[in-house]
Amino acid sequence: MTKLFPDIGIVGATGVVGREALDILESRGHPPESIRCFGSVRSAGSTLSYMGTALPVLPMDQIIDTPLDFALLCASSQVAVQVRALLNGLPTTIIDNSSAFRMEPDVPLVIPEVNGNLLEHQRAVVANPNCSTIMMLTALQPIRNNFGIQRICVTTYQAVSGAGKAGMQELRNQSQSYLDGTDESPSVFPVSCAMNVFEHESDIDPDTGFNGEETKMIQESRRIWEDPSLSVLPTCVRVPVERAHSQAITVEVDIPVRIEQLRDVLHVPGIQVMDDGFPLTPRDAAGCNDVFVGRIRIDPLSDGKRVLLWICCDQVRKGAALNAIQIMDSIREHEQSVFENAFNHACS
Amino acid sequence: MTKLFPDIGIVGATGVVGREALDILESRGHPPESIRCFGSVRSAGSTLSYMGTALPVLPMDQIIDTPLDFALLCASSQVAVQVRALLNGLPTTIIDNSSAFRMEPDVPLVIPEVNGNLLEHQRAVVANPNCSTIMMLTALQPIRNNFGIQRICVTTYQAVSGAGKAGMQELRNQSQSYLDGTDESPSVFPVSCAMNVFEHESDIDPDTGFNGEETKMIQESRRIWEDPSLSVLPTCVRVPVERAHSQAITVEVDIPVRIEQLRDVLHVPGIQVMDDGFPLTPRDAAGCNDVFVGRIRIDPLSDGKRVLLWICCDQVRKGAALNAIQIMDSIREHEQSVFENAFNHACS
Repeated sequence: MTKLFPDIGIVGATGVVGREALDILESRGHPPESIRCFGSVRSAGSTLSYMGTALPVLPMDQIIDTPLDFALLCASSQVAVQVRALLNGLPTTIIDNSSAFRMEPDVPLVIPEVNGNLLEHQRAVVANPNCSTIMMLTALQPIRNNFGIQRICVTTYQAVSGAGKAGMQELRNQSQSYLDGTDESPSVFPVSCAMNVFEHESDIDPDTGFNGEETKMIQESRRIWEDPSLSVLPTCVRVPVERAHSQAITVEVDIPVRIEQLRDVLHVPGIQVMDDGFPLTPRDAAGCNDVFVGRIRIDPLSDGKRVLLWICCDQVRKGAALNAIQIMDSIREHEQSVFENAFNHACS
Repeated sequence: MTKLFPDIGIVGATGVVGREALDILESRGHPPESIRCFGSVRSAGSTLSYMGTALPVLPMDQIIDTPLDFALLCASSQVAVQVRALLNGLPTTIIDNSSAFRMEPDVPLVIPEVNGNLLEHQRAVVANPNCSTIMMLTALQPIRNNFGIQRICVTTYQAVSGAGKAGMQELRNQSQSYLDGTDESPSVFPVSCAMNVFEHESDIDPDTGFNGEETKMIQESRRIWEDPSLSVLPTCVRVPVERAHSQAITVEVDIPVRIEQLRDVLHVPGIQVMDDGFPLTPRDAAGCNDVFVGRIRIDPLSDGKRVLLWICCDQVRKGAALNAIQIMDSIREHEQSVFENAFNHACS
């Protein structure tokens, strides 16, 4: 039988996503004895408050000293590669938030609501998609299931927390200096993030002109939906918001659709429809688990085949920490059902 | 012969657009004797600094006391209707920034770079389009001229100054209170504008779901381009930026196009191409006259027929005050050429 609480190692536990993972586990009553925190050389030796106890942050290479069921990697691609090498041959399942393994054929790229079926088979590594991909496909999956989707045009309004604690601190510092009239130079972002909007800071592909974030949305969407010809046209933009991303999405559907049908199919777990005329904002989504969908419209010239949506999602939760934990939950459910099937078979 | 400096009345002179019109006229050396400022009952009696002099703000109904060549209306639709009634029968040409007359068949709706030819005939009233329409069509006109445009999908990142001085003050107040942790209630906007993004505050059409700003972009674009079947799909969003709007635009063109061709055709007066890899932001456009175009991309799956752009424009200048003054300039150029033609004809 699977354990009530698996042993989990959180790598990058002091970062924005790592802390969020701890918050979620704490709210679920996951006991501190079943959690190990790992961090960089700089944060090792510090502690993190968890259920009234102080969890020590261990140096990353100690991850092999304790048997772990899951390693949630909430760090850079570079760290992810190192941790995979360390855990090679051990039975720990890695769930990685970085982009290191997302395009590897043997590594499933999973949003549980979309392609959780890939977790039926045991895997050494599962990749968590990019936050912008997760929120977009989570919102679009019920529409795709019912009406088919051929083409997506999406523009993002991305919070600075996508660049971690440093990005959030820069927004606060620069906002204050803007208001004070001093307007200090940026360090995390290429331009000032206060009272400004600017293209996502990831590198631009010289061939296509798309930046790294946009390229991830294109490639990951095609992989997750197993549709190499899917047209995804993203424009990724940072806005001076601390937490939660927003997206304006236009999709072309195969089967003509009416607004009421869209509202109906979007009533599924993980999505909250907020289309009552009051503005849906990223602040509404901050700290929440669901993807919020508002402003459902249909292009009146499209015969019901072009749909517009406005969606907001806490990208640190559903876009990262929560999705990783949901992947863990799905793996454990599949293990449990395999165990029960075997048990039932043995008893029959 | 036309006068060197026409007599201009500015209605709503103390507002954001009115002050900008004065700034532009001042930078062109327009003498204070040829300018009259008008305001609401509240602002009448105050003065505005102009070329070292103090221009008195007169009550609006005094607009009929002095002969004016042009009345630049920088006020609400309600005020525009009143002023038109006051000036009825007088030879003053009204250039109106509000939406009051934009759909009237006898009132041309003009962006000089796009359809300035409509100013060849004398008009009692000329309407200035909505700021979001002006910047979008100014940037797209050279592409339409050369490659044809059938469909536009646009999402906006609109500065709070679109809601006037009160909007700008609310952004500053709320940003400070957000940083201080007090987060006071909004009064100008329906939700907090600090560290937040939200749908444009104009009323939503219950039939289409589009808000007022979006409906203007659809209707005005069709009227200006004289293409009733043009597909325009806007999503209008406010962002915490003081000044200058941004737009992410996707257009479908009739004739396949290459990036270099786009860069070439966009090199026209009124447009600055800033596509050198450094982020183009609304702060770059603030205080400038041009529409800035960056991130020129082509959908690789579209055979050169789907183009993406990121544009920024000071909507108080080119989106309002400057466009109105350019309309005045165009009218005067046409009058001058009519005069010269008549003179040449008389002398021949």
